[in-house]
Amino acid sequence: MTRAPLPRGRFITLEGGEGAGKSTQVRRLVAALAQRGVSAVATREPGGSPRAEDIRAVLLAGSAERLAPLAETLLFAAARADHLEKTIRPALARSQWVICDRFADSTRAYQGALGGVDAATVTTLERIAVGDTNPDLTLILDLPADIGLARAAHRRGGGEVDRFEQESLAFHQKLREAFLAIAAAEPERCVVIDASGDEGQVAAGVMTAIEPLLR
Amino acid sequence: MTRAPLPRGRFITLEGGEGAGKSTQVRRLVAALAQRGVSAVATREPGGSPRAEDIRAVLLAGSAERLAPLAETLLFAAARADHLEKTIRPALARSQWVICDRFADSTRAYQGALGGVDAATVTTLERIAVGDTNPDLTLILDLPADIGLARAAHRRGGGEVDRFEQESLAFHQKLREAFLAIAAAEPERCVVIDASGDEGQVAAGVMTAIEPLLR
Repeated sequence: MTRAPLPRGRFITLEGGEGAGKSTQVRRLVAALAQRGVSAVATREPGGSPRAEDIRAVLLAGSAERLAPLAETLLFAAARADHLEKTIRPALARSQWVICDRFADSTRAYQGALGGVDAATVTTLERIAVGDTNPDLTLILDLPADIGLARAAHRRGGGEVDRFEQESLAFHQKLREAFLAIAAAEPERCVVIDASGDEGQVAAGVMTAIEPLLR
Repeated sequence: MTRAPLPRGRFITLEGGEGAGKSTQVRRLVAALAQRGVSAVATREPGGSPRAEDIRAVLLAGSAERLAPLAETLLFAAARADHLEKTIRPALARSQWVICDRFADSTRAYQGALGGVDAATVTTLERIAVGDTNPDLTLILDLPADIGLARAAHRRGGGEVDRFEQESLAFHQKLREAFLAIAAAEPERCVVIDASGDEGQVAAGVMTAIEPLLR
């Protein structure tokens, strides 16, 4: 007796600046999907597979010597390729949903729009790393940069400030604009969600956005 | 008073399989150039800059979990981009010569010809990482795979065997063929040097090959 192949799971990415609540919303979404009988894997970038987490450590190290911008972009692509091969594609093939905290749009925004790596190179590397495993839906959690930075600082308490969070408010305002430009360019894939409310309000916006995928 | 810009230094890469004597010949060549009044920097890949050495540690870690082949290729490209930006181009701009133990041909051979990453992807990543900083001369140190592996084992003594050295003799024979194919395809850049003799004989071959660049 042969069975029909399982349908591929859905691939959903969450994007946005610091303090937008991405990791919280990833957890809430996985729990909400479980209540609907949908098995979902929570993952993140850079990282999400053992070797990609090794690469994450190189990327986020507060080293005195900064990576060349092109090298940094290639490192994100390397981590992404391993993450896709070892974690994302196998989960989708098992019909699980994959909910990912940051993905290729973060590279477009941080290394491309803000990091000065030319758009053609960013696009070529995205195509090489991602292949045909594009997100079915990208939720862009949007809020004013000053609110996001204040939230990130509060969350951290007295803890260490990572390299990206050290950047200025002007940087984070440009970052917000970069994510909104991606959403405007690909409205069929991206939904912008107002992330200035409380967790429950944002979660309700997320569920509204994914509802069409559950039908 | 203005000065004419300094002439760019020469960029020479040494390639070949395990035990071919690349690192020894890099040291000898730098010393021989110094005797001729030429300042040269010895470097290596993967690595050669502080952050690229961090990436080297990820690449060569004998981790239980192997990197996906595409991710590995992207990691080599990332290390190369940083190495070029931080070490190679600044040295060439100071009119120094750069003598590099392995470079892009190793990626073509190990990840491309042997690792199964398609040639178009390897070529695209090489162009992105290398830009227009191509080697002026590539010396391919050639010897039968069994001799090279025996030398590498001897050099190691009872020490640890790295991941690439663990590969089979058949692998290393294919590797030799891959390097010879590169030399055949780019005879204007590549010189094949018989590396089966002793250090001094190989060094004499190297000096003959670089003589035209000294004129």
